[in-house]
Amino acid sequence: MATIDVSKPILDLNEKLAAANRERFDEKGVFVLDLMASPGAGKTSTILATIAALRDRYGIAVIEGDIASKVDAEKVKAHGIPAVQINTGGACHLESDMIGRAVAALDLDALDLIIIENVGNLVCPTEFYLGEHAKVMILSVPEGHDKPYKYPAIFQISEAVILNKVDTLSVFDFDVEEFEGVVRSLNPQSPIFHIAATKGDGVGAWAEWLAERIETVRIAAGKSPK
Amino acid sequence: MATIDVSKPILDLNEKLAAANRERFDEKGVFVLDLMASPGAGKTSTILATIAALRDRYGIAVIEGDIASKVDAEKVKAHGIPAVQINTGGACHLESDMIGRAVAALDLDALDLIIIENVGNLVCPTEFYLGEHAKVMILSVPEGHDKPYKYPAIFQISEAVILNKVDTLSVFDFDVEEFEGVVRSLNPQSPIFHIAATKGDGVGAWAEWLAERIETVRIAAGKSPK
Repeated sequence: MATIDVSKPILDLNEKLAAANRERFDEKGVFVLDLMASPGAGKTSTILATIAALRDRYGIAVIEGDIASKVDAEKVKAHGIPAVQINTGGACHLESDMIGRAVAALDLDALDLIIIENVGNLVCPTEFYLGEHAKVMILSVPEGHDKPYKYPAIFQISEAVILNKVDTLSVFDFDVEEFEGVVRSLNPQSPIFHIAATKGDGVGAWAEWLAERIETVRIAAGKSPK
Repeated sequence: MATIDVSKPILDLNEKLAAANRERFDEKGVFVLDLMASPGAGKTSTILATIAALRDRYGIAVIEGDIASKVDAEKVKAHGIPAVQINTGGACHLESDMIGRAVAALDLDALDLIIIENVGNLVCPTEFYLGEHAKVMILSVPEGHDKPYKYPAIFQISEAVILNKVDTLSVFDFDVEEFEGVVRSLNPQSPIFHIAATKGDGVGAWAEWLAERIETVRIAAGKSPK
């Protein structure tokens, strides 16, 4: 079988602005999560479930990245959580300058957690550091267990992997064992959380993992533990 | 709500090579389809169902685009159909030079149809003309009916829209009427085919649409109708 390899260098003038973002986040003790997934994997539902689990404990805001529309930011705002919508006008990922401008619209002193919902895409967002403390990805059951073979980079770069829509496992031919085996071979240390975001199933363990990370950043900035 | 718009120019030195590809396809009477979708929407299953419907009538080959792995090309080859795998090594779409090189590995005289499976992504592939006769997209039911709001360009550029996994409509909160309404507002003329690719449901109407397009290109090249 013929195979053609085409490599593409990553251009990263983006890094400098990411470092500036990170400095602000660390100074203010705000943990920033970059959430990545395919379109329709359940990023917004997972964000809403995470907000429900942690809103009594922490100040939370959301930055929504989309090619077009404000539908996700409107969903978040409807829950009384500050949200900034970034429309990339075609670009398949967020970049550090966009985050810097979005953060300027938020009151960092009132926040402990910012969740960035990146553009729906398993490729481009992996290549851009935004100043976040962790990248986390969601794969949903209907997408199929073969995705780590095809998109290894996003599984490698993620500090946690969320498997969403596990309530539909009986409907799809999804081999959990094979999936977890391949993820482990690409990334042995990251936890894999099984959730059904729209029902809240399994969200507790994921929220606890996140809370531990938030505490570390808060305490390093001199905030008292919560 | 704060909204930030960031536009990005499309760089298209790619167009010249696309025109050269197209000239070869037209001369040989080979219809070329660029199939686009999210990861896991069912591109490969739809290709296999299309092959099953049309292989007795037409010579078919497949060009598979992926970041990494050969799993899709292997699935196609297992059905006795010529397949070329392109690994983009990170790039989120195929470009014309990759297609030109892949086509060089195929015997165009034996073919009437080449299906290009683009990289799983609702964004990047829309921006690159490869010399194909038509771009077609697949959305799968589990991705949700709101996708046309978020990724309007891919719905606008597609000459047909395939809604896949309709056998799971009872499991997901997918509003078919809203989906079709938004698609129609973005793109009034393209047909919307409902299929369940892994079961073969609805594939007949889609294959007939495709066969009509194939015939036009074949006849223009002086081949006799099939």
